[in-house]
Amino acid sequence: MSVELRGVSRRGLLTAGVSGLAGVAVGAPITAAAESNTEPDLRAPFGTDVVPFHGAHQAGIDTPAQAFATFAAFDLLPEVDQGGLIRLMRLWTGNAERLTQGRPALADTDPELARQPARLTITVGVGPGFLAAAGLDDAPSWLRPLPEFGVDRLEETWSGGDLAVQVCSDDPVAISHAMRMLSKDARTFAEVRWVQRGFRHASGSTPAGATPRNLMGQLDGTSNGTPGTPEFDAQVWIRDGPDWLIGGTSLVLRRIRIELEEWDLVSRLGKEETIGRRLTDGAPLTGDDEHDEPDFDAVNDIGFTVIPDWSHIRRARPDDPGQRIFRRSYNYDEGPAPDGHARTGMVFASFQADVDAQFVPIQRRLDELDLLNTYTTPIGSAVFAVLPGCEPGGWLGEALLG
Amino acid sequence: MSVELRGVSRRGLLTAGVSGLAGVAVGAPITAAAESNTEPDLRAPFGTDVVPFHGAHQAGIDTPAQAFATFAAFDLLPEVDQGGLIRLMRLWTGNAERLTQGRPALADTDPELARQPARLTITVGVGPGFLAAAGLDDAPSWLRPLPEFGVDRLEETWSGGDLAVQVCSDDPVAISHAMRMLSKDARTFAEVRWVQRGFRHASGSTPAGATPRNLMGQLDGTSNGTPGTPEFDAQVWIRDGPDWLIGGTSLVLRRIRIELEEWDLVSRLGKEETIGRRLTDGAPLTGDDEHDEPDFDAVNDIGFTVIPDWSHIRRARPDDPGQRIFRRSYNYDEGPAPDGHARTGMVFASFQADVDAQFVPIQRRLDELDLLNTYTTPIGSAVFAVLPGCEPGGWLGEALLG
Repeated sequence: MSVELRGVSRRGLLTAGVSGLAGVAVGAPITAAAESNTEPDLRAPFGTDVVPFHGAHQAGIDTPAQAFATFAAFDLLPEVDQGGLIRLMRLWTGNAERLTQGRPALADTDPELARQPARLTITVGVGPGFLAAAGLDDAPSWLRPLPEFGVDRLEETWSGGDLAVQVCSDDPVAISHAMRMLSKDARTFAEVRWVQRGFRHASGSTPAGATPRNLMGQLDGTSNGTPGTPEFDAQVWIRDGPDWLIGGTSLVLRRIRIELEEWDLVSRLGKEETIGRRLTDGAPLTGDDEHDEPDFDAVNDIGFTVIPDWSHIRRARPDDPGQRIFRRSYNYDEGPAPDGHARTGMVFASFQADVDAQFVPIQRRLDELDLLNTYTTPIGSAVFAVLPGCEPGGWLGEALLG
Repeated sequence: MSVELRGVSRRGLLTAGVSGLAGVAVGAPITAAAESNTEPDLRAPFGTDVVPFHGAHQAGIDTPAQAFATFAAFDLLPEVDQGGLIRLMRLWTGNAERLTQGRPALADTDPELARQPARLTITVGVGPGFLAAAGLDDAPSWLRPLPEFGVDRLEETWSGGDLAVQVCSDDPVAISHAMRMLSKDARTFAEVRWVQRGFRHASGSTPAGATPRNLMGQLDGTSNGTPGTPEFDAQVWIRDGPDWLIGGTSLVLRRIRIELEEWDLVSRLGKEETIGRRLTDGAPLTGDDEHDEPDFDAVNDIGFTVIPDWSHIRRARPDDPGQRIFRRSYNYDEGPAPDGHARTGMVFASFQADVDAQFVPIQRRLDELDLLNTYTTPIGSAVFAVLPGCEPGGWLGEALLG
């Protein structure tokens, strides 16, 4: 096995050049803890950077977030049975392995477009309809639509699905090509239900490891887990559950519209109190630095807590560390409407071992009292069981369908 | 004036860091000829890179193409008169100057989002309706819808407009913020008619100066002008015409759907003969290297020309060098349709001093005989007069409205 290591990339991931990988299977994702906010970027063009495909877990979860993501959900055609699902999953696995490693898909009609994966990852999840079509009733209890929340204004167009794929890369051209290959594979088995395209700051535009800013102007993701730590592993990977899900996780995907017209009317102080952090640098209102621990007990001169009761960081932060979720969200922007109002929001994606034990209690607390609710509206919602990874020769879903 | 030069960036543009520019006006765009395909990328994060705003020409035309572009067209509200147009153009000029230099727009509600322009450029053009609203009849003869071509299947949704803006950056977050500020400015004057969002390979993913690949898999843009050369200047900048357009240019914007289902059925040889170039490296069928001159007279063993009569490069290449256009196009991708078919294409953008003398004859030749027509369908079309640039203290359109 000849893997040419290129050194530490911008975001602290050891990446391997495509050139050294032709036809070679690689091991589990290699995530290095090395991080630096200051060292200059010494990389060659990053188009050929690859993230290993095989391993105990699928890539695209503990992978440092790429700049672009497309999420697509599919509805299975009525005639598709277990045999069809096996064919689809084997096809997808083979092509995901090829494309993420910079090789053309099977019968790729545009093989040159596969040359620059730019850390392409392809991550597959299944919904309740997938298990039903397979004739299985071995679903985790949380694999169902989320309970209704008062803030929700869900649209069918952006919700549900029997099957989903998350395609991420630092180059949007790689995503277009991969999405096209995967949706061609799926055609005889399923219809596309929805597609959500998201972005963050372009790779290399911000210092390594910097928390990205969302379209409300806030640093978003400060208090998130760190892949590779025991806390992250406990938070994200499924250890108890049906056999076919051990090493997998769950994906909660919510399309959250930002009510920018309302948000614009709020003063800077009002915005900072809504969030609980400063807009300039993301420091909690009780601290000096983005990564300072918020002091929820601190009070101001007149006796009110500095971080208000209804602030987002107070409501979102569980007392029980077991309730944490790992967020990997993206911005969306459909461009201004005819009246000039923005049509933007967040493709909120969180991974957690148990939706009911982790995501739901947090969301319930936010639903009860979180001023940010006034400025954001969930318009889509879906839950998927993210399959564990596979080793060379295996395929995604083998433990479920094989 | 203190401009901190950061050295030569990936794409051969001398860029100035935001930090050295606070509140300082800078001169005409500085485009350096320095190009290298091999030297390592030694840049700091590029989010703070700026392209100068002021100069004889607007930026975003001879600027090395950024990775992302959003084009938006506006229809003026019926009550808007010359006074309204002046207010709008002064507002836009002021905010374009600020945002492109990494400073918040006037009354920016999210000033932090302005910090990382990543070579943001904002380029303004006007359509016939703009001149009518201003009560002027001093339009160049080419400022009207293009003549009908046989291949066109134009949709009103993607065509026309009284006013247009092109917003480009290497970071899509910068574009979202700038588009939002500009459309807020425009609200009391105009409605958004259409928005087209495009992308190329991410900045830094491919070697400096490499020709990008489009979503048909071909290298697209090999034979394009070189900014800063006398040929480019003659091709692009208006020297003869109404006074208010001297130093300006014209923008032809065409939304061109790619018929990927048809293209997929073509063999590699068929695709290469359709284009006249090799898919692997973009070399003409008569050459070895992308930048070799095509030999249109070369014949094969059985006496046919190697580059067929109906190939795109033969049809697109004018005999008259005066007919050349400067292309600055982007890909679009709306994600797969429910049936899994791709909804992708090109936001084709070309700049030329005279639409009738340059763009139209090329397009007529392509319309008559160009096999690529079978696989591409223009579904949108618009023509704008791109205003000349302005100096500090001036504003875009001053010579027209002032």
